[in-house]
Amino acid sequence: MKLLIEKNILQESLNYVSKALSTKNIIPVLNGIKFELNNEGLSLTATDNDITIKTLIDKKDIKKIEEEGCTVIYSKSLLEIMRKLSNTDILIENFEDNKISFTTESGAVYNFSCFLKEDFPNINLETKQDYIKVNSNDLKTMINQTVFACSLQESRPLLTGVNIKITGDLLECIATDSYRLSKKIIKLDSPTTENINIIVPSRNINELIKVIDSDDEIEIHTFSNKIIFKQENIIFQSSLLNGTYPNTDNSIPRDFKYKIKLNLKEFYNIIDRASSISQSKDKNIVDFEIIKNKLIIKAASLESKMEESMNVENETENDIKISFSAKFMLEALKILETEEIYILLNGEISPIILKETGNENLIELILPMKTF
Amino acid sequence: MKLLIEKNILQESLNYVSKALSTKNIIPVLNGIKFELNNEGLSLTATDNDITIKTLIDKKDIKKIEEEGCTVIYSKSLLEIMRKLSNTDILIENFEDNKISFTTESGAVYNFSCFLKEDFPNINLETKQDYIKVNSNDLKTMINQTVFACSLQESRPLLTGVNIKITGDLLECIATDSYRLSKKIIKLDSPTTENINIIVPSRNINELIKVIDSDDEIEIHTFSNKIIFKQENIIFQSSLLNGTYPNTDNSIPRDFKYKIKLNLKEFYNIIDRASSISQSKDKNIVDFEIIKNKLIIKAASLESKMEESMNVENETENDIKISFSAKFMLEALKILETEEIYILLNGEISPIILKETGNENLIELILPMKTF
Repeated sequence: MKLLIEKNILQESLNYVSKALSTKNIIPVLNGIKFELNNEGLSLTATDNDITIKTLIDKKDIKKIEEEGCTVIYSKSLLEIMRKLSNTDILIENFEDNKISFTTESGAVYNFSCFLKEDFPNINLETKQDYIKVNSNDLKTMINQTVFACSLQESRPLLTGVNIKITGDLLECIATDSYRLSKKIIKLDSPTTENINIIVPSRNINELIKVIDSDDEIEIHTFSNKIIFKQENIIFQSSLLNGTYPNTDNSIPRDFKYKIKLNLKEFYNIIDRASSISQSKDKNIVDFEIIKNKLIIKAASLESKMEESMNVENETENDIKISFSAKFMLEALKILETEEIYILLNGEISPIILKETGNENLIELILPMKTF
Repeated sequence: MKLLIEKNILQESLNYVSKALSTKNIIPVLNGIKFELNNEGLSLTATDNDITIKTLIDKKDIKKIEEEGCTVIYSKSLLEIMRKLSNTDILIENFEDNKISFTTESGAVYNFSCFLKEDFPNINLETKQDYIKVNSNDLKTMINQTVFACSLQESRPLLTGVNIKITGDLLECIATDSYRLSKKIIKLDSPTTENINIIVPSRNINELIKVIDSDDEIEIHTFSNKIIFKQENIIFQSSLLNGTYPNTDNSIPRDFKYKIKLNLKEFYNIIDRASSISQSKDKNIVDFEIIKNKLIIKAASLESKMEESMNVENETENDIKISFSAKFMLEALKILETEEIYILLNGEISPIILKETGNENLIELILPMKTF
């Protein structure tokens, strides 16, 4: 392999694929990035056997291709050197089977060890004829609005993933840790023929967000055991969690006895202060009370207590008292974007529902806490 | 105690004193901040029995003083609530001996527990008639340019502190971990009568930097067992380390066989990249070689190696090869401020000296590493 390429172009691609590098060092070759130079251009691949990311630098973006080839470069110092180097043309050349040199315009030389390319996992990244197209901004927002609600506990492994369902022209994304739930629906431009119901590990979906570019459309290719996201010259493949995600449709109430409209920012700030008081207590409990058009928030710990109130629109005019985790409420409020929001209730032991005003496609659910 | 005060004014003082709060919870009352309201104003004090910080909010900056008094408030939730609250007038009132309430203009109420004021350590913060005055910017710079070289190892406790010496009109600050040393000299406006040679714990001096305001002069009051820094309405007191700091004067050579002048930024960037290569190796060793007016830097690890060169002015025209820790070199280079610097050498096993061009008051010393 021998080529001349601008550092910044190479670095951009390296940054993308590096998200798939293994953080554990169990299989040495997974610390490597595969460089493949052929008549299409230079493609880079990294994998931890769970996520695989492949990018292609088109041959028109490479200054000189002198000799095609393939090698797997030990990535740790390579990535650091690329990050610290200012832009320059780099001559990349395999000078022994297991060594590669990077030479800059000013004559600085960096040599890196290579792994045997035969040891690098042979991962099938073939896409399908039949795929879904989504606006990448919509996809990013959907992930950000749901993934935080995933469980972190391995005791219920399926809940550590995000449930993605596609039926007709609806793409649904659901995450829950069984104490709170977040659900977002996107309407697709054209309906799919195939019904899809899969679970993507939350760690992988968090890496996906870092790789998606906001401006373009993204293709989603689903398989029985994996999912591929494809955008221009980047392919992101993730494994799936095996199993059937619990059906959450029935846990979200449709009718409510209480409908409260309030200013999001004011409410967030009060809950945020309440969380400072309650935090030394288990579970971070805050008391929420509606008396006519007044909302009262109370929190207490051994060393301190607080009481604040704000005006709300109480559309049903019933009073109610309910308690919940300040931490879960803050995380749910953080992803809502309208100036005013709805809090929908049925009673002090029924789920609390949060919605943006004028948007039925995003639903946040928090289970109340019993304080008696 | 009863007073009305603007939140932002109170918060500024709280931020200063909070730097002295104990991070360990061994003595509960050290989690408290002492509030003392008298005819001068409101003074706040916090201490961990090693650092003590006291601030005074002048009575002219307090909206209403209704009742003088003294109490020690549990600080954890108090500090968080103050940080999260937007500016408002706050009515502060002791309503039981061990409770205090903070009420905002909008009617939000926060109650905090208080400790018995008798349990709070009675710390003497009296200053002296005879003190030193330093420009606070100069003091800050001096600390930043030395404290990083302190030892972190408790096995040589004196080296975990910064040595401050005052003789005549010279204020000297020295730090060393026995592998490298940093020394800065400030000329005082007027000479002192008393010779001073003390050791201030590096942790404390790092907290001092956060409290110093850059614009004003600062008073330094030294005692046999403590040091007080005083600036306007803030008093910062630190304990001292007991013992005699090693005399470092003889370890800094005065004459040199090699005098190399080079561009600081270019050299820093090369060493920074070299540190990426050598880092997996013990001690982070980099090879430095001068051949006429060319400096060559080499580093190698099991997986990679590098070689870079730059032009330098070699005033003595002797060639030399020397090795050192990239980490220590980077830390020393970071605090130098001139565009070009001097590297002064006597041979491959003698100390490496770094100086700014045109400034004899800052000396950096790094011991070379043997690589044979």
